[in-house]
Amino acid sequence: MTNPTACLLVIGNEVLSGRTQDLNIKFIATRLGEIGIPLREVRIIPDVPETIIGTVNEVRARYDHVFTTGGIGPTHDDITSECISAAFGVPWEKHPEAMARMERHYKPGEFNAARQRMATMPRGATLIDNAISIAPGFTIGNVHVMAGVPRIMQSMFNALAPSLAGGPPIISRAVYAIGLLEGRVADGLRAVQDKHPALDLGSYPFYRATGNGVALVAKGPDATEAEAAIAEVTALIEAMDLTPIPGEPPA
Amino acid sequence: MTNPTACLLVIGNEVLSGRTQDLNIKFIATRLGEIGIPLREVRIIPDVPETIIGTVNEVRARYDHVFTTGGIGPTHDDITSECISAAFGVPWEKHPEAMARMERHYKPGEFNAARQRMATMPRGATLIDNAISIAPGFTIGNVHVMAGVPRIMQSMFNALAPSLAGGPPIISRAVYAIGLLEGRVADGLRAVQDKHPALDLGSYPFYRATGNGVALVAKGPDATEAEAAIAEVTALIEAMDLTPIPGEPPA
Repeated sequence: MTNPTACLLVIGNEVLSGRTQDLNIKFIATRLGEIGIPLREVRIIPDVPETIIGTVNEVRARYDHVFTTGGIGPTHDDITSECISAAFGVPWEKHPEAMARMERHYKPGEFNAARQRMATMPRGATLIDNAISIAPGFTIGNVHVMAGVPRIMQSMFNALAPSLAGGPPIISRAVYAIGLLEGRVADGLRAVQDKHPALDLGSYPFYRATGNGVALVAKGPDATEAEAAIAEVTALIEAMDLTPIPGEPPA
Repeated sequence: MTNPTACLLVIGNEVLSGRTQDLNIKFIATRLGEIGIPLREVRIIPDVPETIIGTVNEVRARYDHVFTTGGIGPTHDDITSECISAAFGVPWEKHPEAMARMERHYKPGEFNAARQRMATMPRGATLIDNAISIAPGFTIGNVHVMAGVPRIMQSMFNALAPSLAGGPPIISRAVYAIGLLEGRVADGLRAVQDKHPALDLGSYPFYRATGNGVALVAKGPDATEAEAAIAEVTALIEAMDLTPIPGEPPA
């Protein structure tokens, strides 16, 4: 079985300007790997309508799933939802169930026009629940539109995930050693990679107060093969009189 | 004067799999804003040759500068440099000055074939100094190729930055208030944005142990106009009987 693929669009000037450290990519990447929908590309794009519309249409044709974060709040710079409507060529209109949920949430008179924008969606959208702040995300076609605030995004992703049909999970096995140098182990690693073309064998140097070293990570659909590759890497490390430690180095 | 534009390519399976939290985007975005070369797009792409080659050629035609991070180490999964050569259609060959620097750095016999790959570059590349671990980055055309390890990337960026001809710096002014709700201030913000079309006025909710609120940030080339817009936003906050605090909320 082949794995479906995913692309993430991070929509927001605040990430491109350096104001905001993105924390959503790692969460979504990890969770998608676990459910067997590997993330193949991320794009961070500004709050510019033609850029959002063009990018959505480009990537929704190329990947099985597209996830977006950001730009679905009530202010003038939140334009993701109306741009998704334009990308799909459908009306942007009040979603009855989203309107009903938000009307119940706000005190009388507080569900104003700005907040009603958050219940305005492309025609045909289905809602993604938001357990934190009510205003839902939505799915249209293969595009899943979520909030940018990490805890709201995470709530939406958790609500959405059970409905996504993934492939086999991507299995990861790792080993690391303090004192290991990439330049000394490179030839051996290449031979291990060549022996296991179905795996993705990565080499990642780390620099910690407790010591520098390299982590080697084998990823693929088959746990047995990932473990075999890591056993071979472990033997390379032992042959250099270093101490291999199973797993990833502590953060 | 118009500002030149930039795109950043983060090259590496480890970011797309969620293994690694990217820390380079925020640094590069911030520094590019300061020197007046605003970052317009970021793409995170895997270690797949045709993807790297195609993406480099697409974005180097679209932006004034392209920066890449990752994939220039000595191991089999470090393929950025040879892919950049392919994108430019030039030979990938040993760079004499890079070879000389690395030969001086390593003990006799340690400058092996894997490490010599780090001195192998597209013909015509100029070096970007690496004060941390010697092996240089490089520039070819409008593409600047840097390491993925944050402190090495930062050293390379610092070496490169003085040679980049930027435009006017992007000026940022901000105000925030605890207790402010986006849904209540949205109409007022839109009016301020409409009055200052040359500015980018962003609204960013925050959630902190010390209180929730919203930060409003005006960015643009003209400090006086950014300050005028923030003064108008400050008046909106005061009219809601909240306390505006100049600047960004503490992290």
